[in-house]
Amino acid sequence: MGGGFGGLQAVRKLRRAQVDVTLIDRRNFHLFQPLVYQVATGALSAGEISSPLRGIFKDDENVRVLLGEVTGLELAAGQVIVDSLPNGGDARKIAYDSLVVAGGSSYSYFGHEEWRRFAPEVKSLESALDVRRRILTAFEAAEIEPDPARRDAWLTFAVVGAGPTGVELAGQIAEIARDTLQGDFRAIDTRAARILLIERDDRVLPLFPPKLSNRAARALEGLGVTPLTGRAVVAIDEESVTVAGAAGDESERFPARTVVWAAGVIASEIASALAAESGAALDRAGRVAVGPDLTLPGHPEVIALGDMVQVHDSQGRPLQLPGVAPVAMQQGRYAARAITTRLRGEEPPPFHYVDKGNLATIGRAKAVADIKGLQLSGFIAWITWLFVHLFYLIGLQNRILVFIRWTFSFVTRGRGARIIAWPPESR
Amino acid sequence: MGGGFGGLQAVRKLRRAQVDVTLIDRRNFHLFQPLVYQVATGALSAGEISSPLRGIFKDDENVRVLLGEVTGLELAAGQVIVDSLPNGGDARKIAYDSLVVAGGSSYSYFGHEEWRRFAPEVKSLESALDVRRRILTAFEAAEIEPDPARRDAWLTFAVVGAGPTGVELAGQIAEIARDTLQGDFRAIDTRAARILLIERDDRVLPLFPPKLSNRAARALEGLGVTPLTGRAVVAIDEESVTVAGAAGDESERFPARTVVWAAGVIASEIASALAAESGAALDRAGRVAVGPDLTLPGHPEVIALGDMVQVHDSQGRPLQLPGVAPVAMQQGRYAARAITTRLRGEEPPPFHYVDKGNLATIGRAKAVADIKGLQLSGFIAWITWLFVHLFYLIGLQNRILVFIRWTFSFVTRGRGARIIAWPPESR
Repeated sequence: MGGGFGGLQAVRKLRRAQVDVTLIDRRNFHLFQPLVYQVATGALSAGEISSPLRGIFKDDENVRVLLGEVTGLELAAGQVIVDSLPNGGDARKIAYDSLVVAGGSSYSYFGHEEWRRFAPEVKSLESALDVRRRILTAFEAAEIEPDPARRDAWLTFAVVGAGPTGVELAGQIAEIARDTLQGDFRAIDTRAARILLIERDDRVLPLFPPKLSNRAARALEGLGVTPLTGRAVVAIDEESVTVAGAAGDESERFPARTVVWAAGVIASEIASALAAESGAALDRAGRVAVGPDLTLPGHPEVIALGDMVQVHDSQGRPLQLPGVAPVAMQQGRYAARAITTRLRGEEPPPFHYVDKGNLATIGRAKAVADIKGLQLSGFIAWITWLFVHLFYLIGLQNRILVFIRWTFSFVTRGRGARIIAWPPESR
Repeated sequence: MGGGFGGLQAVRKLRRAQVDVTLIDRRNFHLFQPLVYQVATGALSAGEISSPLRGIFKDDENVRVLLGEVTGLELAAGQVIVDSLPNGGDARKIAYDSLVVAGGSSYSYFGHEEWRRFAPEVKSLESALDVRRRILTAFEAAEIEPDPARRDAWLTFAVVGAGPTGVELAGQIAEIARDTLQGDFRAIDTRAARILLIERDDRVLPLFPPKLSNRAARALEGLGVTPLTGRAVVAIDEESVTVAGAAGDESERFPARTVVWAAGVIASEIASALAAESGAALDRAGRVAVGPDLTLPGHPEVIALGDMVQVHDSQGRPLQLPGVAPVAMQQGRYAARAITTRLRGEEPPPFHYVDKGNLATIGRAKAVADIKGLQLSGFIAWITWLFVHLFYLIGLQNRILVFIRWTFSFVTRGRGARIIAWPPESR
């Protein structure tokens, strides 16, 4: 279950096998997560990074798609409890022989769930559309605001979290202000916008080598982004974000009407349900412990994978796997192979992650790449980023549409999908 | 004011003139109205038929765009009252020398505003996205519904109003059921879906010549649509639509979980504000009476145009102008010319509408066209429809994107944007 990267790969690998597959997801589409932030900045339309699940498995008679939310698990009885969504939540039980759980993760607010209202995240499509509306509306509000201090607050944008998504988002907001909207307004100079990138760790892109973090930080500064590293968020309200001081200084309050959240990954709640059912451990990020073959302890018929698990090796030591799409995809394919191997009465070998590298784009023709020790930055890294993302998009049509959007954005520095699609009143 | 077809053309014509223009609209984008129903059926993404207004007038220093809602008019003082939307509704007054009012229209519910909940319309983008979610969710609900009668209700779709939009929408729903979704489901046969097209008038496309109405009706029946003409809707609730009997028979109740509204155009409320201020007449559709030069009686400085006006000739007789985009566009350009003519101290000639014809598409390679008495149907009419719509879309990028979507739809019979983009729970 789960139509994200891991679940999708598992089902794809199983469609030629002699098994019946039921794919359960809350959404009727696979979302290309790494580009959701581009919807938030108006560079792409929602439909262009989404692929209907039923369409993907149209010709696979052994695959059934179920639109529903998994609300419980009964491992002993071999069934999952699903609230069917289309008709308003009839609960029903689905029996399984093998279960693959790929529930993914979401952003945590470090225990401050009340910040979500002021600082929407950019992981779900719905929230990304909310972010898009807020960013675009902020410039509109600044245009008509007579008071200079209040205008500055409308023109200040804060991004919390400097992982790849936060970095990419901050870079895109800077480009919107400097390039896309230049000339669009009459009363304000959008280039005066201030973009803060707040990160608890002492550098941006903490998962990359320090050299690339430095290059990324310089590229961001060149775009007009102010990285505030080594500083944690301590408060967010409708009009400002407050950040802890560097090295014990007093905390600092920045008036900012637009705050976007891209930090603190927490595993899907289904991980804790799995832990409760099987007695497996749960780590601080809410991830359930699985063995080297991704199965739950005592349950060789249940595989869990992706962002919501912590894989352990045969000595019981936790492996350090990043929470990125390639890990989930490889695990999904592994899960499918493991199931067919077990059907033949054999034992699958342990899961082995092949690290193909890390990529993050910063802005127009700027990116960093860490590919098997090869550290790239600038244009070459950016072209790599571009083609890798186009390659992994599902469906030829979406690839062409996204390619055209990007070509136009590159040439015209515009952003075609910058519409405020919902009544501003509802803000 | 108004960023629809009329307002946009007026501002475009004025951007080279020695005047300062303020364009006021509630949305930050121009919406290509004739294709909104394709968003409702998942054929296109919202961003692909929307163009940001600021982007269109980026290089025109004399054009200012204001995101706000006009809530009042003071013709004697020469000012309009605007609720600015981005910062939560500060009202302010904007003074003008010449005023162009292009407020458009919306669907009326024939005095049954309570039907809106059960039967959303397909004129606004927001509502079209709601319709898309409902259509797609209905098939999902049918897939998991064990009771045959309830399943049939989920598979019954009713479209109210058989003007071009209603006809096109019914045809598209039929194609979704017969082609796009074929093979997507395991429990239901989507081709069994029933599509009712309800029209008070005695034929579909009442504004077209009867011969073309007949051809359209036959083409619709071929697609699996059941036209119910000469029959008015008398009730709508969550589970059904009730239609008056033909020729005095008893009314008939059809169980249908999805009802879409495309009937009963009513002018923007700003029309009645203009009437109240100027003493001009208001007709049954809420349209304000304007003279042959589109000005309000006694107010040569105020032009009103588009769906919200009833134009009268110099003898005071009402002209029969259809409520379509070409009329609004020609009136918009006329308004701009009239303003510059008056600035030179001359009187503009009366507005003259050049009827270039009427087009309606029914489905894949099927359309009807009535061009200056030449009545076309089938493939030629469809190709004409296609290129006319691509030509009038704003922006090269959107033209290319829509063309690609259509090409893929034509070849694969798929619909790329059929995502249920909002949490099904919110339904």
